[in-house]
Amino acid sequence: MKIFGIDPGSARTGFGCVERVGSRHTLVVCGSLSGPPRATFPDKLKAIHAGLAALLAEHRPDAVAIEDVFVLRGASRGHASNARSALKLGEARGIALLAAAEAGVPVTAYAPAAIKRAVVGYGRAEKHQVQQMVKLLLGLDQAPSPHDVADALAVALCHLQSASGTLAEHLTEQPRPRLSTLRSWRDYRP
Amino acid sequence: MKIFGIDPGSARTGFGCVERVGSRHTLVVCGSLSGPPRATFPDKLKAIHAGLAALLAEHRPDAVAIEDVFVLRGASRGHASNARSALKLGEARGIALLAAAEAGVPVTAYAPAAIKRAVVGYGRAEKHQVQQMVKLLLGLDQAPSPHDVADALAVALCHLQSASGTLAEHLTEQPRPRLSTLRSWRDYRP
Repeated sequence: MKIFGIDPGSARTGFGCVERVGSRHTLVVCGSLSGPPRATFPDKLKAIHAGLAALLAEHRPDAVAIEDVFVLRGASRGHASNARSALKLGEARGIALLAAAEAGVPVTAYAPAAIKRAVVGYGRAEKHQVQQMVKLLLGLDQAPSPHDVADALAVALCHLQSASGTLAEHLTEQPRPRLSTLRSWRDYRP
Repeated sequence: MKIFGIDPGSARTGFGCVERVGSRHTLVVCGSLSGPPRATFPDKLKAIHAGLAALLAEHRPDAVAIEDVFVLRGASRGHASNARSALKLGEARGIALLAAAEAGVPVTAYAPAAIKRAVVGYGRAEKHQVQQMVKLLLGLDQAPSPHDVADALAVALCHLQSASGTLAEHLTEQPRPRLSTLRSWRDYRP
């Protein structure tokens, strides 16, 4: 079972693909996508969409997992804190949902608290705790960075958990892949 | 000069293509796109994207014009009145911008007040005034409906005006095309 997590953003969209074979979770690929720095905004969206389409075609996941954005007015806990940023986030999120639909992959959205609960065990965990647990759960040499890559892996792990019981029971059975497994797709442009 | 206006929405996206030949503005096509009623949200976005892509490929406009959304918290003047609706609007807007970029058509965004000023002559005009002026300016038998179709035509007309002086001077030279020109693409599914 292979899950492709996406953390959408119009400046940079994080992604992380995680596979479960038996009781093991392993990292397939992760990184982030962004458009050429001087491109127009529509051309940046086009580059991100093309990158996601290429990745979904290459890795053929069983499902796409994405954060279900809860908009907290005036708050700024990594969510859309106001309508202007919600609009920008929506533009990138629409592209991600479209890429999944075009690839014929079903999409499941998870509330931020559910993702944190699944990965860290605590719904109000901090960003760095999510990063550390993603590192542990996937047996990585280093914590995935930046946050959008860790968040994309976290939502993919959350989906695997919801489909297979808890993550914790798989933790001790992990192999420890070398850092080279963590192929970087940052600024990937097809 | 042919301009393709888009009024994005994830439930229904309005579009209107307007052409200027000499000093005349004529309607090329207008309507609205929506996904199959029981489709998932990503599949609805896919249907809208495919519809826009097909229309842009068929009509090959010189430019896409779209409303530049100003988010007014707590207000509801047809804009995103809160972050949740801004997110939804963004998802549809991202799809529209992507379709334009993929078609290689430049996108220009206009502030709502600029569109109303261009079409009605008054930046705080009401929806029905926009509809009536679009009808007059394009010499239609009836006002385009629903609002998203009129809004898409209005932003296209706004772009033509910004490229060619005022609309008013063209008004008296309009031919009056029959209603059959107003092909409906409502619920168009490629």
